[in-house]
Amino acid sequence: MNPKVLVPFSKGVEEIEFTTIVDVLRRAGAHVTTASLEGALVEGRSGIRIQADTTLDVALSPAVTYDMVVLPGGLPNAHILRDDPRIIALLQSTAKAERPVAAICAAPSALFKAGLLEGHTATAYPGCLPDLPSEQQSDDAVVISGNITTSRGPATALAFALSLVATLFGDAKASEVAGELLA
Amino acid sequence: MNPKVLVPFSKGVEEIEFTTIVDVLRRAGAHVTTASLEGALVEGRSGIRIQADTTLDVALSPAVTYDMVVLPGGLPNAHILRDDPRIIALLQSTAKAERPVAAICAAPSALFKAGLLEGHTATAYPGCLPDLPSEQQSDDAVVISGNITTSRGPATALAFALSLVATLFGDAKASEVAGELLA
Repeated sequence: MNPKVLVPFSKGVEEIEFTTIVDVLRRAGAHVTTASLEGALVEGRSGIRIQADTTLDVALSPAVTYDMVVLPGGLPNAHILRDDPRIIALLQSTAKAERPVAAICAAPSALFKAGLLEGHTATAYPGCLPDLPSEQQSDDAVVISGNITTSRGPATALAFALSLVATLFGDAKASEVAGELLA
Repeated sequence: MNPKVLVPFSKGVEEIEFTTIVDVLRRAGAHVTTASLEGALVEGRSGIRIQADTTLDVALSPAVTYDMVVLPGGLPNAHILRDDPRIIALLQSTAKAERPVAAICAAPSALFKAGLLEGHTATAYPGCLPDLPSEQQSDDAVVISGNITTSRGPATALAFALSLVATLFGDAKASEVAGELLA
């Protein structure tokens, strides 16, 4: 069965990051659900309006378990995600089940708030992890630390999404999708 | 006054290409209008539904002149664009007025059909310009030939969009936006 990936998002989402995550994971064969925190149509940080597949409440109905949770960045989206107790609980339960969680740009702050970066190296958009000890911070485009993948911003979104494909499907599938994208 | 850019699109649009073009040009300060050929909500090739700013007919009302027209790729979007007489007429009138036109992925085929690639070098997704003489084809990520800019696919969308920023605003603005995106 194809892995199930949840991508929660809200207003101000960074559109390049959002579409790159969803597009690349769907090309690989993942069953990606995009879930809005605030109504069906979400306006991104650059004014592009995207229709969510469903709402977060429906997406979190008890019958569904996700194999991976990915948080796109953009503001205020990343702060809304970080400040929503449903997101924090979802990140914690996913990590506890040893399933991968991932975040890019300003969104790794939600992983920090959920307590998931303890003992992990992470990256984010510059200045977005002010409370993470500097020795745990990296400037790499994509950082994989255990089950936690983080990345920096729009220009690193493609490498981030391809690394998530590698995590779920292996390196051969990631190379195949990269080739299709001309990466 | 900020330059006006038109981005026409239809079902099957490549979502990474579409959002990268719009997001990057808006970050630079362009007034970007996204215009659907077929209703308000457009489903992309990877199933992301995007709401257009307006319809193509409204966008082409005689009072508006665009400083640049940019065609995203993805199928069937690129074929729908290529086969729409309004798009062909728009490309021809924009080029005749010596304003830039641009296309990525499968969409340069619309420039070919409009007769705009005569004497120009261009690129596209592999196999998408079968009738362009091979000496006019390039494998470069982004090709600028006179007022015509072309590019190859999702992984070259960011370089393509930044080159359009350079065309409209100059290299300094393109560098500034690239820095913001962490490119």
